[in-house]
Amino acid sequence: MSEPTASKPIELRRRLHAYPEPSWCEFYTTSRLADRVEEIGVDDVFVGREAIDPDERLGVPDERVLERWRERAAEHGARTDHLESMDGGTTGLVAVLDRGPGPVVGLRVDIDALPFEESTEPDHEPAAEGFRSENPGVMHACGHDAHMAIGIGVLESLADAEFSGTVKVFFQPAEEALGGGRAMAATDHVDDVDAFFAVHVGLGHPTGTVVAGSNRPLAVRQSRATFTGESAHAGLAPNEGRNAMQAMATAIQNLHAIPRHADGLTRVNVGSARAGTASNVVADEATIELEVRAGANDVLEYMTTHVDRILRTAGEMHDCELETTVIGQAPRVDSDPELAEVVETVAQRTPGVDSVERHADFGASEDATYFMRRIADAGGCGTYVVVGTDHPGGHHTPRFDVDERSIEIATTVLTDAIGDVLSEAP
Amino acid sequence: MSEPTASKPIELRRRLHAYPEPSWCEFYTTSRLADRVEEIGVDDVFVGREAIDPDERLGVPDERVLERWRERAAEHGARTDHLESMDGGTTGLVAVLDRGPGPVVGLRVDIDALPFEESTEPDHEPAAEGFRSENPGVMHACGHDAHMAIGIGVLESLADAEFSGTVKVFFQPAEEALGGGRAMAATDHVDDVDAFFAVHVGLGHPTGTVVAGSNRPLAVRQSRATFTGESAHAGLAPNEGRNAMQAMATAIQNLHAIPRHADGLTRVNVGSARAGTASNVVADEATIELEVRAGANDVLEYMTTHVDRILRTAGEMHDCELETTVIGQAPRVDSDPELAEVVETVAQRTPGVDSVERHADFGASEDATYFMRRIADAGGCGTYVVVGTDHPGGHHTPRFDVDERSIEIATTVLTDAIGDVLSEAP
Amino acid sequence: MSEPTASKPIELRRRLHAYPEPSWCEFYTTSRLADRVEEIGVDDVFVGREAIDPDERLGVPDERVLERWRERAAEHGARTDHLESMDGGTTGLVAVLDRGPGPVVGLRVDIDALPFEESTEPDHEPAAEGFRSENPGVMHACGHDAHMAIGIGVLESLADAEFSGTVKVFFQPAEEALGGGRAMAATDHVDDVDAFFAVHVGLGHPTGTVVAGSNRPLAVRQSRATFTGESAHAGLAPNEGRNAMQAMATAIQNLHAIPRHADGLTRVNVGSARAGTASNVVADEATIELEVRAGANDVLEYMTTHVDRILRTAGEMHDCELETTVIGQAPRVDSDPELAEVVETVAQRTPGVDSVERHADFGASEDATYFMRRIADAGGCGTYVVVGTDHPGGHHTPRFDVDERSIEIATTVLTDAIGDVLSEAP
Amino acid sequence: MSEPTASKPIELRRRLHAYPEPSWCEFYTTSRLADRVEEIGVDDVFVGREAIDPDERLGVPDERVLERWRERAAEHGARTDHLESMDGGTTGLVAVLDRGPGPVVGLRVDIDALPFEESTEPDHEPAAEGFRSENPGVMHACGHDAHMAIGIGVLESLADAEFSGTVKVFFQPAEEALGGGRAMAATDHVDDVDAFFAVHVGLGHPTGTVVAGSNRPLAVRQSRATFTGESAHAGLAPNEGRNAMQAMATAIQNLHAIPRHADGLTRVNVGSARAGTASNVVADEATIELEVRAGANDVLEYMTTHVDRILRTAGEMHDCELETTVIGQAPRVDSDPELAEVVETVAQRTPGVDSVERHADFGASEDATYFMRRIADAGGCGTYVVVGTDHPGGHHTPRFDVDERSIEIATTVLTDAIGDVLSEAP
Repeated sequence: MSEPTASKPIELRRRLHAYPEPSWCEFYTTSRLADRVEEIGVDDVFVGREAIDPDERLGVPDERVLERWRERAAEHGARTDHLESMDGGTTGLVAVLDRGPGPVVGLRVDIDALPFEESTEPDHEPAAEGFRSENPGVMHACGHDAHMAIGIGVLESLADAEFSGTVKVFFQPAEEALGGGRAMAATDHVDDVDAFFAVHVGLGHPTGTVVAGSNRPLAVRQSRATFTGESAHAGLAPNEGRNAMQAMATAIQNLHAIPRHADGLTRVNVGSARAGTASNVVADEATIELEVRAGANDVLEYMTTHVDRILRTAGEMHDCELETTVIGQAPRVDSDPELAEVVETVAQRTPGVDSVERHADFGASEDATYFMRRIADAGGCGTYVVVGTDHPGGHHTPRFDVDERSIEIATTVLTDAIGDVLSEAP
Repeated sequence: MSEPTASKPIELRRRLHAYPEPSWCEFYTTSRLADRVEEIGVDDVFVGREAIDPDERLGVPDERVLERWRERAAEHGARTDHLESMDGGTTGLVAVLDRGPGPVVGLRVDIDALPFEESTEPDHEPAAEGFRSENPGVMHACGHDAHMAIGIGVLESLADAEFSGTVKVFFQPAEEALGGGRAMAATDHVDDVDAFFAVHVGLGHPTGTVVAGSNRPLAVRQSRATFTGESAHAGLAPNEGRNAMQAMATAIQNLHAIPRHADGLTRVNVGSARAGTASNVVADEATIELEVRAGANDVLEYMTTHVDRILRTAGEMHDCELETTVIGQAPRVDSDPELAEVVETVAQRTPGVDSVERHADFGASEDATYFMRRIADAGGCGTYVVVGTDHPGGHHTPRFDVDERSIEIATTVLTDAIGDVLSEAP
Repeated sequence: MSEPTASKPIELRRRLHAYPEPSWCEFYTTSRLADRVEEIGVDDVFVGREAIDPDERLGVPDERVLERWRERAAEHGARTDHLESMDGGTTGLVAVLDRGPGPVVGLRVDIDALPFEESTEPDHEPAAEGFRSENPGVMHACGHDAHMAIGIGVLESLADAEFSGTVKVFFQPAEEALGGGRAMAATDHVDDVDAFFAVHVGLGHPTGTVVAGSNRPLAVRQSRATFTGESAHAGLAPNEGRNAMQAMATAIQNLHAIPRHADGLTRVNVGSARAGTASNVVADEATIELEVRAGANDVLEYMTTHVDRILRTAGEMHDCELETTVIGQAPRVDSDPELAEVVETVAQRTPGVDSVERHADFGASEDATYFMRRIADAGGCGTYVVVGTDHPGGHHTPRFDVDERSIEIATTVLTDAIGDVLSEAP
Repeated sequence: MSEPTASKPIELRRRLHAYPEPSWCEFYTTSRLADRVEEIGVDDVFVGREAIDPDERLGVPDERVLERWRERAAEHGARTDHLESMDGGTTGLVAVLDRGPGPVVGLRVDIDALPFEESTEPDHEPAAEGFRSENPGVMHACGHDAHMAIGIGVLESLADAEFSGTVKVFFQPAEEALGGGRAMAATDHVDDVDAFFAVHVGLGHPTGTVVAGSNRPLAVRQSRATFTGESAHAGLAPNEGRNAMQAMATAIQNLHAIPRHADGLTRVNVGSARAGTASNVVADEATIELEVRAGANDVLEYMTTHVDRILRTAGEMHDCELETTVIGQAPRVDSDPELAEVVETVAQRTPGVDSVERHADFGASEDATYFMRRIADAGGCGTYVVVGTDHPGGHHTPRFDVDERSIEIATTVLTDAIGDVLSEAP
């Protein structure tokens, strides 16, 4: 149905790679994508507050952090009207090709980066080729730069194609924080989607491999808990304190010891802790960040119930107040076998693809599942496609990079799969 | 024997109050004191490396922090030769009046400030009178500014007096960190001291009260412990981590539960904790700061033995390495009753004093005890004198202030007590 | 005033030593004492339910245990009417000499034994002399046999004496369990007591020493807590359990870590734990026995508040029910200085006494303090007298024994002190 | 090939049901089985020490317990020569039909009972029919009585059949303790086995169902750990104790918190705890019983490494000695698919069988896997067969019972499957 024009997407990928922004701070990225889809000539563009439900966001950083990234984006040429639409960290974009009656097909790509300093070593291609991150301490270390290029590439191809129906590309913010999927899936852009694709490059699969339908992502909930007690001089009056440090330690120990579950695997981790100020003062505040995961959604509920109970009682045990916030969340939703078959068929005939797997376990977590669940609930279907890419460093490491050939492969496979769905309609 | 000249010390107190420096960063303060004692015309001045034993310092901050304060001191006019003597955070000063054969008498005053932002409220006198802290986030909130003025006042009085013997005033750095007492008491300036006085204002006693010999300070040890494990993805491979968070939580719980001791009161507090980076990563590092205190030195040893064992085994339990540093320490040493009687007698006849207590419990900890222990071991004696002062806010709070009348009282009492010791010699 | 007839009390001490009974099981002991005071010819005898308030008892053992000891007592000749009065473990006795108007003086001695097997070694005098315990696993290892002999000796002496007033001897059960003091002090026998003596032998003081007023007993509360959860197959369905083992472990760790208190020493101990049945079953029940002590009654309240909160929240944390029972309790009450002076004066003239201390710290806990508190509240006074005795083995060890000379000394001192109080009345 | 004579096995099952014996105490049971196989006329019988490797036993009870059951067996008619062979708890039996050259086929049935009191309710058939347990507190609540009847039934059938080869029936002790499998599989009786069957009734499958090859039993290790510290008076000298209670609590908390593993499910449970004696004594001893399980043998090793490290360091943390014993163990070994197919084929033609499953997950643990692993290592094969039985109460409950029709079905299926293996040999 189409022949992707690879050069421009790759150029875009490199530009976006050089300007990575963390979750909910993708001001420049969103604006740049908006510019590009306008150039392509899509029928509708929804930016920022029109693309997400602000109240459903999770893990939004401090106003101070948002402001700093917004200003930096403005300095780098982000359009004022775009920035206004993204006020208070409401990033993201939905681009629509509307060609009249017919199926509505969605494609989701994610756009945020990670808080790592990118490698400067000479054999790290972005460093060698001059498109290494310009933003200190932030890096596209999970391929979302490639994902955006794929989304743009698919729009380019389909913009020139003839079809009846609608194509929506969801440029989702804050996937790394597991905070944007819920916010974008809650909008009515998703209401009428019949078939849905999400795409990820790599994940251990080499260039040339395509997984048509990834399954078994772990359901996950990440949260922050703050215990507030009362400080006291540890030598003169330890009894006058309400010890947030002890509440925290009790919580950490008991959280890691939540009983295993018969119906599916579970995970639990308290990954971050900050408490108190000095050795001679009873700590009056302690904050932890933690997550639970599970192989099934009801097992995640089991974990969540335990987490909430342990936090509450650990606080009460040491007479501390407790405040908790969910900072990231995603359910487990598996790929639709029939839609995966469409991808499988298309991939088998795509140049550069030498291995196609119908199913594979995902292993980690992803908030594209919010889209998949909502669409499935409304009678549609979705699949999570993995397009292999050779990557020298692992995901989430300073030396991660993608094989740019995979961008072309992914663009072709997804364009053709979307084309198939559009043309197969009665 | 003497008439203190109050006005100059108070002027000095105000100048030093306005320029507070934290432990081991007293570059400006030391230099300013050196200038002043030279003006007074003492016989010897020892600055920095000549005043302390650098290897015995505890709780020295990062080189970066030291450098910042050194530069600031230079900008504010600290003399270059003084700054060179204090290279690498070796602050402090010993001033000596050497008048030939006779008793050697020591007086110790401390010189560092606290990491608090001083009150700006109009009824806070330093704010109203224009000598509030010029150094953001640092404040003389424990009266060490008054102590320095007392030390200078005593030197001024005695410089004009006639006596046979030697008087040494120890301007000790880093008392708040419990890190300077050990370093200054380890020098040979202390070797020949026959009678020793340390002085503190306030501590809950009002202006007009003098405690001749404070007793029962708590022995204390403060330390920092870092557990180093290995990070891992908490969802994909929790088993590959070595969990520093769990090591830390186990340590916190068990430290607070060290059994009470029959032979004296004990205290234990983990006051600060920092661990890990994100909810989805097994924490590979965790650092705590803690202290133990005891009513007797061998009970402190008991606590220390337990602390060390708990930290070591908590680390091993979770396969983590452990690194510990002592950051502050002081023994319990009580005042000598006979020397306290000298103070009592003198205080009873001092104008402005309306209540004299021979003994009182100290309650907290102090590293002047290092001097007192070393001097007692060599056959000398020491007493810890508290000179009451009305203080609107509590010690270690942003509204702490001293009643400047107490500076004059303290100067008189100490000058006269030192004079008594000098004249009573056979 | 009197000359104690020593031989009969010692004979009685040996008979009672040979038949030790645990707390609330002193059926034979009470009956034997009742027989003896009737022989002496006192004016009133109150046995069992008439001597204590059954509702105020703490730490009463199982009905099964009570029944076994009651039957054994019956077999050994305890009178049926006595046993009926002690139905359900209501042991104890009050003997009264009522000689008309005048002061009311009380003496309390305790009567229960400990759950130890007595030594059989030939140099253990009760073994050598043939009055070793006949009751396996139970032993008079704290001198209560001597106390009873003293109580009887005092009654014998005073029965023959002339005085105006009333003397009451309280033979208190269940001191070792800290469960009988509260029950006997709650009766109206105590209402009108003007002066009160409690006596204990030994406690580290040798024969010939008398402590006129022992002070600073530790306030104490002992309790039992049972967590009830739900069992489950630990392999097949761990999530179906409610884990009482984890609730218990969390409680044990946090109880030992209750913060120290500025106003007095504290103690905490979980001394016994029983939980679960087999390694492959999630434990559905866990029971601990614990105690807290404190140097002051309000500090004990502080500890109690913490204990209750920790137990409650540890149970809730693991979704377990909690049941708690107080099994022993005693307040801190100090001796009256004036009454102690009476004892001091008398002791100084008593043959065999070579050292009299006015005050000494008690160190452990005692429920005679219930009497002392109630009597002080009503305007009377009390003192806790320690009469030294050489004891080869420590208290609460299988080789404990008393020097029988101390029985005569104690009898004389107490008889004379009571006599003094009676004769000094206006 | 055979027609099982059902009546005698059922009679035997009822006799054995009425005389249940716990693990390693199956003195009467073994003797009775030995009598029976001699009646049948097998070629070889190995009893007790000749049937197991005594050094490989796990979970052997106290000598005192063994002696009590041995005496009881003697009173009930166990043969003296049998009892001598089982000296010190070396129970179990191997019966052999040796018919010359040909395949060697093994069948394992287990013989021990559980520590439950059997139901007396009238609708519990063993109670109604008069073969309820005669041994208080012990019950065949897992169908091992049926297993023995099946083993005897197979021997009876094959004794009359004609074949070339060898058949060995392993009557294994101590399966409930996971302590006998290792001991019997370590003998040279197992060396030459080519094909091996283990059988279990029920496990949730109804009468008429046969599972030809059960898979995925959990690898398991059960152990006992004792911490030994030092007791002390909790009020007078808590610091003199070495607190085994705190060591235990720390261990319990950290054991339950061993990190989950990426490569397979894990389980951990501390199921039993006993510590200390009284609330006022620092506990000097604490014993826990615990288990870990895993879906893979190397994951069990991971759990074991963590358990050992946690126990060791928890002991050291509180200065306690540690002693640990493995009390039960079994690896994960799956059924051989080809041998399962033999069972499947035979079962499909067996009267009374209406449903045959080739594979099913086992879920719990079993020590027949020791036989399967050793035989597979030597080139043979094995399968774990489940023969359904309607059971009114669940396994390991007081109302468990088997449908005796399943005994006939199992006997037929196993006789025929063994026959098939024997006749299929080249």
